[in-house]
Formats: sequence, C-alpha cells, structure tokens
Amino acid sequence: MSLINYFAAFLFLQDKRKLEDMLSKNKIKFIQSLDRKRIREEHGVFLAEGNKLVEEALASGFEIELLVCTGDFFSKRNIDPASASEIIITDKENIKKASLLQSPQETLAVIKKPSPAVSEIKCAGRLSLALDCIQDPGNLGTILRIANWFGIDQIICSRDTVDGYNPKVVQASMGAIFRVKLVHTELLDFLQHEKELGCPVYGAFLDGKNIYWQQLSPTGILVMGNEGNGISSEIEPLISERLFIPSFAENNSKPESLNVAVATAICCSEFRRR
Amino acid sequence: MSLINYFAAFLFLQDKRKLEDMLSKNKIKFIQSLDRKRIREEHGVFLAEGNKLVEEALASGFEIELLVCTGDFFSKRNIDPASASEIIITDKENIKKASLLQSPQETLAVIKKPSPAVSEIKCAGRLSLALDCIQDPGNLGTILRIANWFGIDQIICSRDTVDGYNPKVVQASMGAIFRVKLVHTELLDFLQHEKELGCPVYGAFLDGKNIYWQQLSPTGILVMGNEGNGISSEIEPLISERLFIPSFAENNSKPESLNVAVATAICCSEFRRR
Repeated sequence: MSLINYFAAFLFLQDKRKLEDMLSKNKIKFIQSLDRKRIREEHGVFLAEGNKLVEEALASGFEIELLVCTGDFFSKRNIDPASASEIIITDKENIKKASLLQSPQETLAVIKKPSPAVSEIKCAGRLSLALDCIQDPGNLGTILRIANWFGIDQIICSRDTVDGYNPKVVQASMGAIFRVKLVHTELLDFLQHEKELGCPVYGAFLDGKNIYWQQLSPTGILVMGNEGNGISSEIEPLISERLFIPSFAENNSKPESLNVAVATAICCSEFRRR
Repeated sequence: MSLINYFAAFLFLQDKRKLEDMLSKNKIKFIQSLDRKRIREEHGVFLAEGNKLVEEALASGFEIELLVCTGDFFSKRNIDPASASEIIITDKENIKKASLLQSPQETLAVIKKPSPAVSEIKCAGRLSLALDCIQDPGNLGTILRIANWFGIDQIICSRDTVDGYNPKVVQASMGAIFRVKLVHTELLDFLQHEKELGCPVYGAFLDGKNIYWQQLSPTGILVMGNEGNGISSEIEPLISERLFIPSFAENNSKPESLNVAVATAICCSEFRRR
C-alpha cells in the first residue's frame, strides 16, 4: 500500500482499532482453521474472502469480528472503522498467507455466525426451500444464490447437509449467504410440524408428476434431495406433491440426471413464473 | 486383482492386446499431460476417468485408444477386448499414479477426440446452444449435461470458450460429452451465416425481455455469454431476441446474477416446457 494510504488509515484507526501491518502466526493459523466445522462452531464465526464478498458482509449488518485488508481497500472503499471489532491493515502478501483461496484478494473477514432458532422459521404464506442431505459445498452455495434470485429467503437444511458456513459454500453463494436465512435442524420433525399446520410440501423426484403441468401453490416448502440418492426414505412419506422435471432427450441419448442445483433452479423458476 | 481374474483377463487378451500389469512411467506422464490443451490437440485425444464415465465411453461408439482398468473392472463389466486399441490391466495403486482425480477409481481411458466440421452443424429445425467465451470448465460440463437433458444435441462454442475436452469439463459433463456434439469455431461468422438462413438467434442478458412472457420458437440458437461479462459486444448485434430471467428478490435483497449454467438451464426449460 502507498505510504499516504497507510498513514491515513493509521490516523483514522489509531485510537479506535488495533492497527498492525502483519497478521500474527496465530491469527493466520486461526483464519485457516475456519475451514473446519468444529472450529467454526466452537468460535461461532465463519470466513468470507474477496473484495465483493467482504463488501457484501460490511453492508449486510452481520457482525464482523476481524477485518483484514490492504490500505488501498480500506481507503478506496471508505471502510467505517467501526464496522469491525478488530481491523488489521496489511499487504497482499500477508493476506495471501492466511487465505484459503487459490487467488487471494485484498481482503478477508471473520464474521459472527448467525444462529436463527428453528422457531423463528415460519413457512406460512411464503415459499421456502428444504435440503435433505446436500453434500457438495458448491451445490449449497449455488442453491443459496438461486434462492436469493427467486425471492426465497429461508432454507431449512437437514443435519447431514453440508455446513452453510463452510468457506466453499460462502464463496459459491456470491454473497447470498448474507441475504438468505439458513438453519440446520431435524428436517423430519420440522416438515412434520409444518405439514400439520397445513403447509404443502413439494419434493423433486425422478418419477413424480411433470412439473410443467402442475398447479403450483405460491407458498409451501420445496424439498430437494441428496446428489446421488435423492430425497431419503425417511423424508419421502412427508412429501404431499411429488414433482419431476421431464427430460426431452431422445431415447438413444438418455441422460443420467440433472445436477441438484440446476434442478432446484428449474423448480424455483416454475414456482415463480407467471 | 484376484489371480483368477488376472489369468482370465490374460488368456482373453494375450494374442489380441497388450497386457501389462504396470503402467510405464512414460504412459503415466502422457496420461497426466492430457490436462493440457496443446497435448490433447497434438495427439487428438482426451482423457475420461472413473467407472461410470469409462462405461459410457465404451457404450458411446467413441474410438478408445487406451483403456486402463483393474482386472475386476475388466471381468465384472464384461469388457470386449476389441473395444480399445490397447488395454492395460493393472491395480488401483498404479491407476492412481496416472489419475488427475482426487479419488481415482478403477479405470481411465484415452479417447480419440471427435472433430466435427462446422459445416456438419445444421441449425434449421432444431434448438441449438451457442457459448460466447464460457471460461469455467465446471460450467461447460454442467451446460453439456443440461443440453443433453433438454434434448439439445449440439453446442457451438466461440474459440475463447474453455476446451470441451478439458478433463474437468469431461468429468462435470457426467457422460453428456459422449452424447452432445461440440464444436469450437468463429462464433461471429457462424451466427451471421445461420441468421442469413433465417434461424432465430436468442441471447440471455440482464436487461432483455422477460423470458416468461415471450413466445419462444421451438427452433433456433440460444446464445449464453461469459461468466463475468455476458455476451460480448461483437456478438450482441447478432441477437434477434434479447431474453432475461427476472429476479423475484425483494429490493433490499438484490442478488448479483445467476450462474451461467443455472441461467442456461432455466432458459432451456422455458424453450422446452409445454
């Protein structure tokens, strides 16, 4: 960073926040350990990397425990020194040491994990997504982005679904993680309860009713299943409407299936189109 | 592999194909070098890994130059010894040495790259996809899979689109690479020519007409653009119908955009649904 930027940042920060020009070895180790779920749970935080994602975090109202950035990023983006409990301004090389990305950028942030109670999740009058054992972080991130696009503001995940605060999920969500409420819970109990309250429960199968021909309710819960096995036999009896996306391939060119994120997108599009 | 399997394979193969129980260092080096486009072009081959993918290759009619597999795979899957120019039966550890995958499986194959001439690609009377500078191999693989699902049997790629025979594309296509014709060419010239022949050219933009409200022709070319920049300014004037997938997010939760593979899926779904 330029000397002027550095001193501007220094003067700005000195009595409010800690200013170092190096990430300590311990901090680097801690940041990198956020790749592990156990550490994220223990500390109640998660990691977001990259200029776009950190800017979204800053704008989101999420509580930022540690912001690491270059002086350039700090001054050009007009970062409010009160926006994080601790701010470390350092150079790109130093950020690279802590980064989990292949091409580290100018900033990363350690952010307090929200933990919405299941009781806060209300499904009446809106469309929600439920995920039954989604395993791939890229898929969950993409599903968050799709949900955000289609105005679905909550996703209920089974306990065996990949953690939504896994850095790969956060990255793939392109910021949707800050805009879509995510909760991991006992999916069976949750769906049972919502069904008793009269909420329609839709599910995507390889042998359901042609989704293009169905009258879809603008409210309800859409359940998407595991990448390899689909919706589990435990959850299946709770689905009131079995949907399926028909293939248009010729018989001699039969495709295996659609990726679960792609299938989620097509289902959401069908629910929302008018 | 069990001794019995080994000798069964040996007797079966001995006068027809080469049988080794080791991949030579040179072969390992060659297989791994297929990660590079220049080597693939030079030798006119590409790599497919994993049981499912290799079985699809064997069933596809593609010419297989080298099949490497365990004795178990060879005997259990009833591999025809005439199905490849060269077959090497070896153990998993040896296959692992040549593999580009994180979790290598029981087989890999070096396959002759088809090179359909652009003149073979006819767009009249069918729906085709055109890709303008798609960069991410995972996206291209997923788009191949989507095309296959929606009965689109040809994709025309700009020269700056990622190579369709990149191992990551092949892997992500889940076998669709064997079922969908793929050609890289001068996209501008191609579209110009097809447009002159009366073929409608659709394109996905962030500011086109709401795709849900359009009368979509069952035939034509759908152009999808680069991950970050969309359709290039060079190609844009050739688009006769600008389409757009509306967001249903609330204003205070505006999403960035949809991933290009996801957007392709939603567009294809709209073209095909009835």
